[in-house]
Amino acid sequence: MAINENWEIYDNELSVSDNQTIESILTVGNGYFGMRGAYEDDAISEKSTTHGAYINGFYETAPITYGEQAHGYPSERQSMISLPDASHISLQLDGIPVDHNHGEITDNIRDLSMKTGLMTHKFVWTGKLSGKKIQVSFRRIVSHVRKHIFAIQMTVKPVNFKRGILSIKSTIDSDNLSAHSSDDPRVSEINTDEIMKHARQINTQNDQIIGLSFTTQRSDLSAMVGAIHNLDGKVSNNQKIWQSQILIDQQPVRMEKFACYFDTRESHGESVSETVVAELEKSKEAGFDALRKEQANYMRLFWHDSDIHIATNYHDDLQMASRFALFQLLQSVGKDGKRGISAKGLSSTGYDGHYFWDTEIYIIPFFTMTQPQIAKSLLTNRYNQLSHATEHAMDLGYRGALFPWRTINGEESSAYFPASTAAVHINADIMFALQQYYYFTDDEHFMRQYGLKMLVEASRFYLSYGSWDKEKGFVINTVTGPDEYTALVNNNSYTNLMVKNQLEFLTTSFDLSQVARFGVTEKEWQQFEMAAKQMFIPREDNLIGQDDSFLSKPKLDLKTMDKSKFPLLMHYHPLFLYQHQVLKQADLILAMALMPYRFTNEQQKINYEYYEPLTTHDSSLSRCAYAIAASRLPDQDAFDQMLQSSFKTDLTDSQNNTANGIHTASMGGIWLVILLGLAHVQATENKLILDPIMPPSWNAYVVCIQYHGSQIKLSVSERGSHVTLMHGLPIKVQLNGEIVQF
Amino acid sequence: MAINENWEIYDNELSVSDNQTIESILTVGNGYFGMRGAYEDDAISEKSTTHGAYINGFYETAPITYGEQAHGYPSERQSMISLPDASHISLQLDGIPVDHNHGEITDNIRDLSMKTGLMTHKFVWTGKLSGKKIQVSFRRIVSHVRKHIFAIQMTVKPVNFKRGILSIKSTIDSDNLSAHSSDDPRVSEINTDEIMKHARQINTQNDQIIGLSFTTQRSDLSAMVGAIHNLDGKVSNNQKIWQSQILIDQQPVRMEKFACYFDTRESHGESVSETVVAELEKSKEAGFDALRKEQANYMRLFWHDSDIHIATNYHDDLQMASRFALFQLLQSVGKDGKRGISAKGLSSTGYDGHYFWDTEIYIIPFFTMTQPQIAKSLLTNRYNQLSHATEHAMDLGYRGALFPWRTINGEESSAYFPASTAAVHINADIMFALQQYYYFTDDEHFMRQYGLKMLVEASRFYLSYGSWDKEKGFVINTVTGPDEYTALVNNNSYTNLMVKNQLEFLTTSFDLSQVARFGVTEKEWQQFEMAAKQMFIPREDNLIGQDDSFLSKPKLDLKTMDKSKFPLLMHYHPLFLYQHQVLKQADLILAMALMPYRFTNEQQKINYEYYEPLTTHDSSLSRCAYAIAASRLPDQDAFDQMLQSSFKTDLTDSQNNTANGIHTASMGGIWLVILLGLAHVQATENKLILDPIMPPSWNAYVVCIQYHGSQIKLSVSERGSHVTLMHGLPIKVQLNGEIVQF
Repeated sequence: MAINENWEIYDNELSVSDNQTIESILTVGNGYFGMRGAYEDDAISEKSTTHGAYINGFYETAPITYGEQAHGYPSERQSMISLPDASHISLQLDGIPVDHNHGEITDNIRDLSMKTGLMTHKFVWTGKLSGKKIQVSFRRIVSHVRKHIFAIQMTVKPVNFKRGILSIKSTIDSDNLSAHSSDDPRVSEINTDEIMKHARQINTQNDQIIGLSFTTQRSDLSAMVGAIHNLDGKVSNNQKIWQSQILIDQQPVRMEKFACYFDTRESHGESVSETVVAELEKSKEAGFDALRKEQANYMRLFWHDSDIHIATNYHDDLQMASRFALFQLLQSVGKDGKRGISAKGLSSTGYDGHYFWDTEIYIIPFFTMTQPQIAKSLLTNRYNQLSHATEHAMDLGYRGALFPWRTINGEESSAYFPASTAAVHINADIMFALQQYYYFTDDEHFMRQYGLKMLVEASRFYLSYGSWDKEKGFVINTVTGPDEYTALVNNNSYTNLMVKNQLEFLTTSFDLSQVARFGVTEKEWQQFEMAAKQMFIPREDNLIGQDDSFLSKPKLDLKTMDKSKFPLLMHYHPLFLYQHQVLKQADLILAMALMPYRFTNEQQKINYEYYEPLTTHDSSLSRCAYAIAASRLPDQDAFDQMLQSSFKTDLTDSQNNTANGIHTASMGGIWLVILLGLAHVQATENKLILDPIMPPSWNAYVVCIQYHGSQIKLSVSERGSHVTLMHGLPIKVQLNGEIVQF
Repeated sequence: MAINENWEIYDNELSVSDNQTIESILTVGNGYFGMRGAYEDDAISEKSTTHGAYINGFYETAPITYGEQAHGYPSERQSMISLPDASHISLQLDGIPVDHNHGEITDNIRDLSMKTGLMTHKFVWTGKLSGKKIQVSFRRIVSHVRKHIFAIQMTVKPVNFKRGILSIKSTIDSDNLSAHSSDDPRVSEINTDEIMKHARQINTQNDQIIGLSFTTQRSDLSAMVGAIHNLDGKVSNNQKIWQSQILIDQQPVRMEKFACYFDTRESHGESVSETVVAELEKSKEAGFDALRKEQANYMRLFWHDSDIHIATNYHDDLQMASRFALFQLLQSVGKDGKRGISAKGLSSTGYDGHYFWDTEIYIIPFFTMTQPQIAKSLLTNRYNQLSHATEHAMDLGYRGALFPWRTINGEESSAYFPASTAAVHINADIMFALQQYYYFTDDEHFMRQYGLKMLVEASRFYLSYGSWDKEKGFVINTVTGPDEYTALVNNNSYTNLMVKNQLEFLTTSFDLSQVARFGVTEKEWQQFEMAAKQMFIPREDNLIGQDDSFLSKPKLDLKTMDKSKFPLLMHYHPLFLYQHQVLKQADLILAMALMPYRFTNEQQKINYEYYEPLTTHDSSLSRCAYAIAASRLPDQDAFDQMLQSSFKTDLTDSQNNTANGIHTASMGGIWLVILLGLAHVQATENKLILDPIMPPSWNAYVVCIQYHGSQIKLSVSERGSHVTLMHGLPIKVQLNGEIVQF
């Protein structure tokens, strides 16, 4: 992959060629809504395509059908749905369709500029009969500045002729919507056709506006999609089509289309259609170029705070992959405290558009360290769903709050509890992110107003879910850890370590007086302390068991297994996987990656060497954790290899499913690898600890970190590591063991 | 419940009054097919009714929809379906319907004679306008002698008038069929309407025959139901209705109806409709009274071999309950080696008409000890399904054969593997029944031809499912034991003890030379021996853990729990139940009941006292096991109480769901309680061991047992126990520790 200055992704330079994979990669979005990188007119190519436009958290529900039902199972699932697509524009030249049936398409290239947040699509069309050649370009943005606005600027330039009639047909397409991508067996069919059948026209004075409003049938959510053009045209087909004709007279012609995606939960009493029309008119007034500049400016600030510079001895993949990761995280993440970040971002309805623990463990760290206000908004979204978590715990028979394994609206949406609800580490994961947020930002206000209540309720849950064993101490039985190839075990060490961490956070960073208002008594407080102190971790000397019985199971020899049997979950019954020492993904090693200070060097080495050969990395969440853990081991070759592979997911389609959406957790994992695996960053309440290392065959890297409102830049090269204060008050940094004020 | 000589069940004397419960209780069947005890004409009562006619093992399939799918899950479920009902007969007197709308119904009583296998229904009807009174009686049998024949004899007697016209309408009703009873959440909807829509008339020369033939849509099974009457009449409505008129002239009038249920898998090349017609004509020729006598004779022989006499100080419930149990087992059990015995017998489609482990552990013992040819036919049915079991094991990733948890055709039909496929004790349960069958019958031929192959394949499965632990020995991880309130644990002690028993049976009752033809090598044989010897059983001194971690979980205090929370599975999430020390049903205690010789007296006492307070008995399989175990304990009051409660299931509707079918396992449990709990019978290869006890407040009991082809009678009274040889060669009996030849 050759990359223009490492800021641009050209589809013809990607190592993948499947059009739907490329469409996922070229998604543009702003965290509120997103658009896949499909062509404006499908007919310019014969490749198969999946259009998609999604509002983060805009979902329909469907009843869950169980093979066998039991008490307390979720009754319905939520699914983010595909919305009417405003990117469609098709052309005719002198009445002939500008497509691959009626002409030759050449120089057809899409390009995503990560620097400016602009996607460009260009091609040249030569009419079969007329021989007339035009160069067409589309530039599109989903504005980061204007939450609801998507804009396209089209330019058509005559190449070998002087005059012609260009007919433009611009639509909002609500055909062929689907609720999910086909490779995910865990999702239900949602009938979006039914929703669209009842869509209504937008009621507006402006007869140039096309669009429609619609309401989901079961979840009762409404949204409106409208569009306006900077030329006059004819609106038809129930306001879904806009058409216009322009005379090409030697000069290029240009058209701009502005679309507005507006979920009615965004309105505060005012008329939705008036708001949409006003937004559209404002954008049209400003013009595409103004929006593009706003966008470039926004991105400049983003990169200023967030960019990672990497210089390596090998190819430039890593620089590119890390920028792509951060860029897509920004595009995917909800920033208003009312939505999260889904497993596939806003690039598809894969995994139903659900928020998982990926958010807190894999993704929030990037925002915590670079854009803490976004980390805050993600934690606020969890806080806003706390009442559902409290009900969920009660439904199951426990006290406190248990956050849902997968959800949009805060209710558990999972249909197989052994690999979801039983993964009760979700609470500790969220609290880990809260702790990190607090330590990095010192945001006392947030803790007082939101954080502590979550922390207390999440801790209460564990006191009632866990129990006291006279020999072992505090045990947490019947859980599933991160590794989905093991389920319903006792004392998953990741879970227990994370819960221990959570309870220590509560009881050492705060005191009883701060949480008494949540009904915490002295007795309960002591239990929190005691459970943290006596938390049981299964061990055999320095080898830590993934759970109480893991080490006594037979091992699968992954090296000798038939390659066609991977990923194992597609070829083996869960019982077989549960019965063996085999991991889908990092489990104990993830705890080690997140909290290396809880393990001795000897333990890190022994456990890494034990678990790595048992891990299939069938999950995209796995390699980054192993890379981080490997960074502290003597074997630098293994580290280098794991490091490189952890950067590869979407741009190389290494999981073979990027067509069904990007992998946001894996993208967050790239940040983790650099910060936890290379910079070896750790925030405590009063200082920032950095123990940076230089990986084999790297020359240098530079990364910015915010701590307590200040920003520092860490530069690491062969000559050593260097910290500079970029803005804010001086902060205390422990660099390579030495405490320095910067 | 007052009972006529303890042989008759009158519906007006039952302690239950719900009509559908009574219909279940009054089911008549012959193991091939069965009919619920519904009225011939629903309109004589306003109570709600559920008609039902079922052929054992005649099923339709439906796809299973999973909340989340995974590799190796069964894709479809089988469901025994309700068939057209030939019991319908309605009357008119002088053109007025003989029902509760047009007259007064009095003395309406149904009666099931267990002695003769005859069900009678009588009532008196007095016309509202005419004041004419008739006494109507129906007698029905499902013939044990004629596998396919159901017969009804109707008598109508004028009480207060001389002359009248009686119109008879007799139908085969295929309306309102359903595939399942409503209280079972685990079954799918099967559209039997669709099946009946395509039903065809029977092609026959005899124009008096009504009936239809039909084919299931997915499983592609065909059956024919036909009927004939001993009077001439008019056939209409596509051969589904037969009508006739008779002059009542002072004397009673009589009509007989013969129906034939014929599954085409029963035919061997000959024309099905010709067979059905021939069967019908033969029965009609013989006449109802001849069929009734055949039936009474069959039942006489059955009771001769099987009856239990019980004399107690209290009410006669136990005598009645035990006879009812044995009677219904006979009616429910497949006897031709091609079908098993379903959880609800032939009284409903509850549990989809599936065969479970109940068959081998709860039911076969009765047949093994009294009608070994039936035990053999049940084991033969398993043998016939061995190839499915081999495939099933392979699909899961293991060697050998794993029998299905629930099935009709031999394929796993369960949709929630943690409580089904993971219950791998199913193999050992079947092998336990095989061992018992072999020890009681000495049927070497069966072992050679069928038994050994099953035993080897079932044992191979365990060698690959289990594994060797350097400290514990042979362990069997990730299993579910009998107790459904615990799942996916390691070393369930019931499972491990039963597998140990199976492997010991194989390696001590046989030698390598007998199984070498199944590819067993010396090495494998040694592994069988070693696994048996080194089988791990979790223990804390004399207390045996239900599994590796059971004893360390918190206990549920069942005594203080709200009564409205039972059965717990209806009110708690599985996670909550799995997390606690709480049992739905006997688990370790069942192993103790089946193999008391593997436990010391001290162990029996300690474990009973530990587990009983933790057991909800939410399953009808539970109390009989506890009663048997209690029989060996010093506390005779507890024993007496458990003993009595173990007899109560269907006649008192103690589970509140007999309306949805009888509980065959619980019925088998009554036999187990008497034989294993009181007679303390144990068969070894060369002797029969009896250590009979007399329970508190019992005066005497008498029971017959077959052993090695001979039959003995054991009489136990306050004066001691007495054995008599009833027929066959003398056998060696160890009675109360003393070996005697009888």
